Amino acid sequence: MATPVQPSTETAAAAFVRDLDAALPAGRVVDDPEVARSLSRDQAAGAPVGRPAAVVRARSTEEVRRVVEICVRHRVPVVARGAGTGLSGGANAIDGCVVLSLAAMSQIVSIDPLERLAVVQPGVVNDDLRAAVAEYGLWYPPDPASSPWSTLGGNVATNAGGLCCVKYGVTREYVLELEVVTGTAEVVRVGRRTAKGAAGYDLVGLLVGSEGTLGIVTEITVRLRTLPSAPITVAGFFPSLVTAGTAVRAIGAAGITPSALELMDRFCLRAVDEWKQMGLTAAGEVLLLARVDDPEPTGSALAEAIVEHFRASGAAWAERSTDAQEADALFSARRLAYPALERLGPVITEDVCVPREHVPEMLARIEALAVEHGVQIANIAHAGDGNLHPLIIGPGGDDADLWLRIEAAFDGILDAALALGGTITGEHGVGLLKRRGLEHELSPAVMGLHRSIKAALDPHAILNPGKIFQ
Amino acid sequence: MATPVQPSTETAAAAFVRDLDAALPAGRVVDDPEVARSLSRDQAAGAPVGRPAAVVRARSTEEVRRVVEICVRHRVPVVARGAGTGLSGGANAIDGCVVLSLAAMSQIVSIDPLERLAVVQPGVVNDDLRAAVAEYGLWYPPDPASSPWSTLGGNVATNAGGLCCVKYGVTREYVLELEVVTGTAEVVRVGRRTAKGAAGYDLVGLLVGSEGTLGIVTEITVRLRTLPSAPITVAGFFPSLVTAGTAVRAIGAAGITPSALELMDRFCLRAVDEWKQMGLTAAGEVLLLARVDDPEPTGSALAEAIVEHFRASGAAWAERSTDAQEADALFSARRLAYPALERLGPVITEDVCVPREHVPEMLARIEALAVEHGVQIANIAHAGDGNLHPLIIGPGGDDADLWLRIEAAFDGILDAALALGGTITGEHGVGLLKRRGLEHELSPAVMGLHRSIKAALDPHAILNPGKIFQ
Repeated sequence: MATPVQPSTETAAAAFVRDLDAALPAGRVVDDPEVARSLSRDQAAGAPVGRPAAVVRARSTEEVRRVVEICVRHRVPVVARGAGTGLSGGANAIDGCVVLSLAAMSQIVSIDPLERLAVVQPGVVNDDLRAAVAEYGLWYPPDPASSPWSTLGGNVATNAGGLCCVKYGVTREYVLELEVVTGTAEVVRVGRRTAKGAAGYDLVGLLVGSEGTLGIVTEITVRLRTLPSAPITVAGFFPSLVTAGTAVRAIGAAGITPSALELMDRFCLRAVDEWKQMGLTAAGEVLLLARVDDPEPTGSALAEAIVEHFRASGAAWAERSTDAQEADALFSARRLAYPALERLGPVITEDVCVPREHVPEMLARIEALAVEHGVQIANIAHAGDGNLHPLIIGPGGDDADLWLRIEAAFDGILDAALALGGTITGEHGVGLLKRRGLEHELSPAVMGLHRSIKAALDPHAILNPGKIFQ
Repeated sequence: MATPVQPSTETAAAAFVRDLDAALPAGRVVDDPEVARSLSRDQAAGAPVGRPAAVVRARSTEEVRRVVEICVRHRVPVVARGAGTGLSGGANAIDGCVVLSLAAMSQIVSIDPLERLAVVQPGVVNDDLRAAVAEYGLWYPPDPASSPWSTLGGNVATNAGGLCCVKYGVTREYVLELEVVTGTAEVVRVGRRTAKGAAGYDLVGLLVGSEGTLGIVTEITVRLRTLPSAPITVAGFFPSLVTAGTAVRAIGAAGITPSALELMDRFCLRAVDEWKQMGLTAAGEVLLLARVDDPEPTGSALAEAIVEHFRASGAAWAERSTDAQEADALFSARRLAYPALERLGPVITEDVCVPREHVPEMLARIEALAVEHGVQIANIAHAGDGNLHPLIIGPGGDDADLWLRIEAAFDGILDAALALGGTITGEHGVGLLKRRGLEHELSPAVMGLHRSIKAALDPHAILNPGKIFQ
């Protein structure tokens, strides 16, 4: 006798999706599995990716609130994301979650030239904001290398840095006010639009860099600066990482604050050369690129001083760039390093930050780790603030043994940074890739404070759970 | 028949003091009732002061930890304090609490010229740190008017501002790392010493400005800057608050960021003149003082531009100060305003901050409120960032009616600031005086977030309870 057919019982996941569909306008829930897949992960190589129950593209704060409300009701995790340019897995889907893309909330709400602030939706692309405010002679400084694609919401979630942070600071220093959907599906405004304020706890600072684990940001008010003077570029080619590190240290000791101080090692120079034939490799082993944007004649004086420090530290060649095109080419080589290396295989991007004085030692330890584990590690660095990006080149195909050695080198770099008084992440955040590193950096008591705050602001544990820490 | 004598039962308070005495070296618990009384309040006129069960002067982190441990055990509130220069009652004793003075923890632990940072105990006086780092050509910018007396611990607790914040930012922007005794009597370190960092939540930012309600800071690592160029001072006397406000607005619109832009009105000028006979009143109704510290020739160019903006906005007299002595005299007049007004009666210091463009309107509303409530209100202001300090002069003796009118004017000023998109406190914090104002500024949902965080980090509700909010 055949087993009788049971009446179909709706699964919990199906009930959830039905509620989502009912609460949102048509077209918000993504049907195309290819699109859904592409929205389920960020740019972190080697981080696990879960399978979402649904992917939603929100178009308003109210839609975000409804999604969170339904997630609370069904106890479903919600993973907010922007352009997905993150490098630590923070925006990767969790099994059974909603991926909530805010990329379509891309309106610049207002620009106020007198107060020097702008109000944007989270999906506004960093470079789009920069272009819009430049029309008023204003400037939004934080400039992650992903600025042509990354969104302000993602920049806020990760407290993004960039090249000019050595002089102008990171995202947190530019965020005045946030509109946020909380873990209990309330829409709140935190912060203020005045130049100063001391009314209550710094909830803005707490939310910036919290990687979507404490709230979902739906509007951002940022401080702007006046556009600085046209920059002067100084380039120096060095025979070794140590001599370049010495130059970085000398510039710091002299009290000079350039608006960028970038390092590229021979692996990066070679990769760019092989791709774009720029002739960088012929000039030296390590390139340091400095930029100063002080008004003249201070700008020229600082540029000359940097040239002298480069030479005194052992640069084979150091000059102030005399034409803007040449300077742009050098900085574009810096920006091309990452894609150039990606041509060789998946790139696992490290992001440690050490005290400036330990930059030479940290670079030496990275070289030693590459040899020890038999992996290829290229280095680009925001050298001026000790923020190094060792780039570990993964295998083209499957190579389980190489992945294990990469993992060992990755952990070794984190340990070395901590041993030198540094941090496991200067600007990319913890996400999934550095959760273990975070437990090494912070004491159990401080991890406990993190968990207390998370529980306080996300009582239903639905906001990107398991990211940063478990 | 006589009532039999009962065996004496130790009161809870006595048991608590006995435990304190046993846990601390001799001399830490203050016996002198006069000293205890002086340590039971800050400089806020009109804020309630409770009667502490004990007053302790700690000399080490371990002593602080023990005090908190005993407070946890007995569920006794602990009110940490430095020099007590606060202006909102945040350091005022609560009935039955321990007042915990950190003023004796006054060691500068280290200064690192290369990394440009200093490590200090919380009792280090702001000006002492500034003097110590100046020997290395370095500078700690935040400069509250109380800098000759106020401690770094108090500066951190209130996120103190000051004159140069218009260009260089407030205390929070300079704190890298903190050692903290938590509400569960654990000693933790939060933050980092590197230039950048994104490892976990911004607990440093959360603790700065939390007025002792989330933890007790026992060591502070601050960022330093290179000492700027010798400043140039520009002074302008204006016929009215509105013309002076127009000048402030014009300087902001021109994208000029002076390193100070201070305003004093006729009440302040008169009070200083009556005390020090500086002849200020003869020159005009309102004084604006600007300072620029850019290297030459930029500095001179900006100073000239400011002179022009002063004149174009209606200044009766505006000049760049040609000698340093004259400039110092003008800035000391600014610093003398507060004590000069105190000669007239208790001074209730307001501390609102409004968008720069609304400075003229806010000054006009303050004048109207003074007339409406029949109170005397003088104005000093960090005008460049819209941070106004209306100073309400209280009665010399008892005058219940005047106190009621002062309270009404005080609340009126907060309401006016909020109506103009401002905040109830730019740099003094909430303490006791502005708890009602905070409830007006923040939504119930945001107040709820505050309470959740407080409960998470202070589960026994012993850390300065009832301050900022109840």
